[in-house]
Amino acid sequence: MELFNKYSFISCDYDVEEAEIVMFGAPYDGTSSFRPGSRFAASRIRIDSYGLETYSPYLDLDLLDRKVHDAGDLEFAFGNRETVLDMIKTFVDSIYKAGKFPLMIGGEHLITLPAVEAAVKYYDDLVILHFDAHTDLRTDYLGETKSHATVIRNIWEFLGDGRIHQFCIRSGLKEEFDWAAQGHTNLNKFNYDNLEEVVNNIKNKPVYVTIDLDVLDPSIFPGTGTPEPGGISFSDLMKIIKIMSVLNIVGVDVVELSPDYDPTGVSTAVASKVIREMLLVLNKK
Amino acid sequence: MELFNKYSFISCDYDVEEAEIVMFGAPYDGTSSFRPGSRFAASRIRIDSYGLETYSPYLDLDLLDRKVHDAGDLEFAFGNRETVLDMIKTFVDSIYKAGKFPLMIGGEHLITLPAVEAAVKYYDDLVILHFDAHTDLRTDYLGETKSHATVIRNIWEFLGDGRIHQFCIRSGLKEEFDWAAQGHTNLNKFNYDNLEEVVNNIKNKPVYVTIDLDVLDPSIFPGTGTPEPGGISFSDLMKIIKIMSVLNIVGVDVVELSPDYDPTGVSTAVASKVIREMLLVLNKK
Amino acid sequence: MELFNKYSFISCDYDVEEAEIVMFGAPYDGTSSFRPGSRFAASRIRIDSYGLETYSPYLDLDLLDRKVHDAGDLEFAFGNRETVLDMIKTFVDSIYKAGKFPLMIGGEHLITLPAVEAAVKYYDDLVILHFDAHTDLRTDYLGETKSHATVIRNIWEFLGDGRIHQFCIRSGLKEEFDWAAQGHTNLNKFNYDNLEEVVNNIKNKPVYVTIDLDVLDPSIFPGTGTPEPGGISFSDLMKIIKIMSVLNIVGVDVVELSPDYDPTGVSTAVASKVIREMLLVLNKK
Amino acid sequence: MELFNKYSFISCDYDVEEAEIVMFGAPYDGTSSFRPGSRFAASRIRIDSYGLETYSPYLDLDLLDRKVHDAGDLEFAFGNRETVLDMIKTFVDSIYKAGKFPLMIGGEHLITLPAVEAAVKYYDDLVILHFDAHTDLRTDYLGETKSHATVIRNIWEFLGDGRIHQFCIRSGLKEEFDWAAQGHTNLNKFNYDNLEEVVNNIKNKPVYVTIDLDVLDPSIFPGTGTPEPGGISFSDLMKIIKIMSVLNIVGVDVVELSPDYDPTGVSTAVASKVIREMLLVLNKK
Amino acid sequence: MELFNKYSFISCDYDVEEAEIVMFGAPYDGTSSFRPGSRFAASRIRIDSYGLETYSPYLDLDLLDRKVHDAGDLEFAFGNRETVLDMIKTFVDSIYKAGKFPLMIGGEHLITLPAVEAAVKYYDDLVILHFDAHTDLRTDYLGETKSHATVIRNIWEFLGDGRIHQFCIRSGLKEEFDWAAQGHTNLNKFNYDNLEEVVNNIKNKPVYVTIDLDVLDPSIFPGTGTPEPGGISFSDLMKIIKIMSVLNIVGVDVVELSPDYDPTGVSTAVASKVIREMLLVLNKK
Amino acid sequence: MELFNKYSFISCDYDVEEAEIVMFGAPYDGTSSFRPGSRFAASRIRIDSYGLETYSPYLDLDLLDRKVHDAGDLEFAFGNRETVLDMIKTFVDSIYKAGKFPLMIGGEHLITLPAVEAAVKYYDDLVILHFDAHTDLRTDYLGETKSHATVIRNIWEFLGDGRIHQFCIRSGLKEEFDWAAQGHTNLNKFNYDNLEEVVNNIKNKPVYVTIDLDVLDPSIFPGTGTPEPGGISFSDLMKIIKIMSVLNIVGVDVVELSPDYDPTGVSTAVASKVIREMLLVLNKK
Repeated sequence: MELFNKYSFISCDYDVEEAEIVMFGAPYDGTSSFRPGSRFAASRIRIDSYGLETYSPYLDLDLLDRKVHDAGDLEFAFGNRETVLDMIKTFVDSIYKAGKFPLMIGGEHLITLPAVEAAVKYYDDLVILHFDAHTDLRTDYLGETKSHATVIRNIWEFLGDGRIHQFCIRSGLKEEFDWAAQGHTNLNKFNYDNLEEVVNNIKNKPVYVTIDLDVLDPSIFPGTGTPEPGGISFSDLMKIIKIMSVLNIVGVDVVELSPDYDPTGVSTAVASKVIREMLLVLNKK
Repeated sequence: MELFNKYSFISCDYDVEEAEIVMFGAPYDGTSSFRPGSRFAASRIRIDSYGLETYSPYLDLDLLDRKVHDAGDLEFAFGNRETVLDMIKTFVDSIYKAGKFPLMIGGEHLITLPAVEAAVKYYDDLVILHFDAHTDLRTDYLGETKSHATVIRNIWEFLGDGRIHQFCIRSGLKEEFDWAAQGHTNLNKFNYDNLEEVVNNIKNKPVYVTIDLDVLDPSIFPGTGTPEPGGISFSDLMKIIKIMSVLNIVGVDVVELSPDYDPTGVSTAVASKVIREMLLVLNKK
Repeated sequence: MELFNKYSFISCDYDVEEAEIVMFGAPYDGTSSFRPGSRFAASRIRIDSYGLETYSPYLDLDLLDRKVHDAGDLEFAFGNRETVLDMIKTFVDSIYKAGKFPLMIGGEHLITLPAVEAAVKYYDDLVILHFDAHTDLRTDYLGETKSHATVIRNIWEFLGDGRIHQFCIRSGLKEEFDWAAQGHTNLNKFNYDNLEEVVNNIKNKPVYVTIDLDVLDPSIFPGTGTPEPGGISFSDLMKIIKIMSVLNIVGVDVVELSPDYDPTGVSTAVASKVIREMLLVLNKK
Repeated sequence: MELFNKYSFISCDYDVEEAEIVMFGAPYDGTSSFRPGSRFAASRIRIDSYGLETYSPYLDLDLLDRKVHDAGDLEFAFGNRETVLDMIKTFVDSIYKAGKFPLMIGGEHLITLPAVEAAVKYYDDLVILHFDAHTDLRTDYLGETKSHATVIRNIWEFLGDGRIHQFCIRSGLKEEFDWAAQGHTNLNKFNYDNLEEVVNNIKNKPVYVTIDLDVLDPSIFPGTGTPEPGGISFSDLMKIIKIMSVLNIVGVDVVELSPDYDPTGVSTAVASKVIREMLLVLNKK
Repeated sequence: MELFNKYSFISCDYDVEEAEIVMFGAPYDGTSSFRPGSRFAASRIRIDSYGLETYSPYLDLDLLDRKVHDAGDLEFAFGNRETVLDMIKTFVDSIYKAGKFPLMIGGEHLITLPAVEAAVKYYDDLVILHFDAHTDLRTDYLGETKSHATVIRNIWEFLGDGRIHQFCIRSGLKEEFDWAAQGHTNLNKFNYDNLEEVVNNIKNKPVYVTIDLDVLDPSIFPGTGTPEPGGISFSDLMKIIKIMSVLNIVGVDVVELSPDYDPTGVSTAVASKVIREMLLVLNKK
Repeated sequence: MELFNKYSFISCDYDVEEAEIVMFGAPYDGTSSFRPGSRFAASRIRIDSYGLETYSPYLDLDLLDRKVHDAGDLEFAFGNRETVLDMIKTFVDSIYKAGKFPLMIGGEHLITLPAVEAAVKYYDDLVILHFDAHTDLRTDYLGETKSHATVIRNIWEFLGDGRIHQFCIRSGLKEEFDWAAQGHTNLNKFNYDNLEEVVNNIKNKPVYVTIDLDVLDPSIFPGTGTPEPGGISFSDLMKIIKIMSVLNIVGVDVVELSPDYDPTGVSTAVASKVIREMLLVLNKK
């Protein structure tokens, strides 16, 4: 008497034992400074993923050929950032320990910090590819040193110079741009013109990809906390994923969909398709 | 590595074998004459049910004390009404055959027809309690004889006079009101003043309750296909359920939530609470 | 005592006798698998068409110079697909019989089937130009062989190979792309680069143009049943229409606007402008 | 080749010659001080009126038994208040001259002024029944002496004391309440308890009824320029109309629906039903 | 060259030195378990307050006769609950120290905790009147002991039994209702029937009033984090305020408006009017 | 006891005496022919401007380095166009008289007329750069000769030929395009290809820039009165501003944001960023 139940991302219903990839939701938005609500992203994406086809004409690959376990959402009590970060780190660690690869659905961008902390234990030469509208390089925001606005700086603190590549950045403090320009990160303003070169240089490294969906122009992705006009198109993002498909990607997150600012459902459709494409290239090499 | 996953109505995660009640979604809206979209009701209700408490201060009962299996949604191809009706009838039949009781989430009101057809096989003296804004007693709608506008008439055709009690009706053709007044159904205009009397008279009968949520005033339930101002309040509906709680209820449906016309989520919250209360009184006697 | 009444598309108020073109709405959305509501497109388009100018700076043509009769909407009972298809076929047939040309406003894409069935009776060497995000080449969808997902396949069944040209397609089953690649249709993935060549080859043929508006990127056209990021821009579509303007176009449909997913009204404005442009090129040669 | 066309309010498609009642839209909102948009009310009401039944179970009357001509909308250039007021006055005058009765759909409340100016030429002992959240008795608003906030005061200037009865008023300046209390108008705060008494006293007089829909609580009528919590329910308004049904009503207006603040369509459904009921009692005696 | 600038609640633009009342916003929503966004309440309320009149026909009092300073919003970094609570406590303390009275606009309900902590330093026999849909008496929520779901229990911990009166409560765990029934708080289920009696008993005590706006039915107040159907009407709340107007009210908060779930603006209008009424009774005795 | 208060555009809180630039809102939308509501633009922009950074990576300039006074909004009574135009003219005149430069936030486009009338008194060789979807060159609209549809023609009447440059125009009457083509204005259809050449030619002239935000494609700017698909991208507009940055800009207006048609907030974010960039180039030379 079991019927159709949309509890996993489309076709990602493998048992955890047989899966190569474990995807899960991290519905935390506790440091959002403008519009919160990314906590609702993962459950909305799962439902709307059934509007997708599993086949990607962009990559000529089919999700039916990948073994993915959708583990559901971590369950957080709000109000305590440290507990949340610990839970994420522990869970991602358990995925790597089991010899699998994580794809995490945000939530806000701070959740990338514990995921990378876990990944770097297993891949100590890890390289970060970061796609975003924002620098995320602040040292603090109103005194708080761990937030969506500081996350890449937080990661830099343990990875150090030359390990982080940022693309399509179009908003930040002057100090952040200047700090990056001192060589701490490879910050590419507005575009991804240098992505192919970077990809060539890191072909032998394990790579963690973090996609803040507000890298997209708000015309195609309005449903996010801080919409920044001037972003890239969806087709650009498809090209980016194709370029990255030759890499040894060992971890992915897709963050900052805020479905309550998506009255038409288009942002959720975008997020779903980006996740499908990333599932197709994660651990593919 | 299993996390929290909102795939069932809150706390309704019993295995089918141990459950007394089987709830499921019937996401069909193919005969809606005005605004479609009730197909999305069940999946939205499941997610938002987690904003509910399981305890009802109205009934002083707790859903944690009931064994309910949420079976998910039937999966329909749209465009073929007859196939859909058959699938529902077969599924409800299987629930009764297993000695359990169904709670069906619509979808539009036509889905009540196959559910009652199945129920009457097991309970031949079945009585219908029908709460609705609309008469639903047309013989046809633009030539079609099976639709949300004809469903109670369709049921009357095999149950006959004196078996159907309608409450809070406030819209219909003059002919429908007149036909009911000839004694075919017990149609109560605008209110439920006679409900207690009816309940007293049918205490020994098996009862099927069909709640078209547009019986509520659109101030509290805007998210429906055909909003009809002038309906009852949520508190009225809580009173109605309390009055019915002494009955031998053997089947329930809750229909016509259309979440895309519910931008605030209030209609979905209402539907969820009505379902909680009905789960608490279904097969309780 | 007659006032201004927005009952026709702007300036399309010729009597049927003197009109060259008959436009009408076919408000059917009964096989929509995801978000229904295209039934409301035609009436919303008529009202919002008064925000348009009649003059097209793209084509340097003015709608005031064309004789169009807006016949209103066909009136369907929902729930019976076959009746609906018959009504459309009969009505389109009557337009051709009267020596006029039809422009049909959807509704969902299945309505193209009866329109082409009618057209091919009058133009047996008819060629189809199909603009869409989706292949629409399935043999069935959950067992149903006539739906918005099968419509181009349905048409191929009586037109045969080499008669259908598809452009800007970006979603479908792998099987559908493969089937088309066997030569059954001329399927152009993602773009319309080959449109000019196709147009040159069919200059002497009668052409039916079917525009599924989801061919547009959802940034500019969110109000549709299945939004597919990665589509063409509005300027692209204007270029497409200009390229087609040398053809002998004998029938047009514009389908899949779903106004309830268009909270800003932009999708309706887009649809209205596309219809204006298509009225300017229909039967122009 | 004429199809179904929703260009008139449901069933109000009599030719002007045979009609007893002429309804029309006056889409002016030029003096709205808070949220404009009532200009869109009439066209939206016409479309959504097809979700209504013509039969009223409240009055046991059917709109099919009344002869109403829906004349469409007056067409205004915005920016010039005086021209607009003149056009309305002229049009209402022409209706009375033809021996018919007007029902005007707003637009904002200022449009009542020219309508009453026209009516009083034909009925010099005219009495006004005014249902509203607001006093509308200001002498000016930021210097402007003719606006939605002054309209009842404007009418009082030529009707004088004892001719205007106001009900359910719940917002205004202290000065306005005080001025009314001096005997200029019969202002009933919050409720309509005295309506029956008033109705008894004016049974032999011609009556003009002006309904500002914001008299309703914004729970059931959010779609208006200045929502004022604390209003009456829809059932109250149905009672009010029933009480008034014994009167000699010679003119009606229903104003201040602003559809763009009505995302669920409920306010439009309310307005449509109020208009249906008022058409049933206008000139009925 | 200074113009009109909507930076304060309507007419609340006294300098802090001459003011009796200091109102301010506390835009924190960091522990919201369902829908966040109450951080936006205060700024939206200020703008929309200009749709209000300053005169209250309910109380026959005018806000123009009160001296209120609107101090703006506290500025919080999100992510650190303890810092936020400290800032509120410090600010409220400074208001009392200056011999003035606070009215705080939420934010979520946890902000009441530091405000009461400050108040009780100045009024050690302080009594709490609490209006809410929810019990807010949990000992913890997923391990966190300070949140919107525990706030009244947190306050009870230092006030003790017999000091807290709760009204209109309609949702909570069975354990919370049972705990209150042991005499810890005076919890009134569903209604405020006993309010007058309570008011009589505490006439000589200083009173802090906390209004969680979700005490209202979501028909009139949809714009909140956790909508609970079955609440009181706006007129009920006006009656409650009138009953309380004889008390020595020394502090007020109005919490849980979440404007992004208020597409019609009605919830914001409600909140604004409640604040106007509470400003009129605060420190009035 | 002063807190954070969002009453000015971000960082534009200089006293008027020390400011170089005075910005203000002109919330008039009285001649809007389609969707009104631009009256709400300025107050919404101020609040949402706090989602911006002050640093522009496009211009490598920081708003913190400019002295801007945000004067708030002019306060208009609606219904009287002439009074409104006079108030704007007087206020802009006072800005120039004080040796400062104005940036005006609309409102609708008609407000440009009085601003230019004031500017030309101080700069008699003033040149107008006009970015818009619409020609705005009508002689009248339904008889009214001063409206958003005539405003550039109104300005031409006193500036004469050769002084007005229009870019990206994509909608209008054929007559308007023809009239411009006679040499009255330099009308550039669809694009800004000639902007650099024009800029070179007017480098020594004082320039007034009027940006009707509907020049942008409605994909990125849906929140406007008359959305016209086919516009330029946000990146285009950034390029335009960069090209203009060498000019002697003495006045700016940014008009036609209508926030109620901007459910996602993206249009407001766009408007805010355009204003930031224009503040950075105004009077910069």
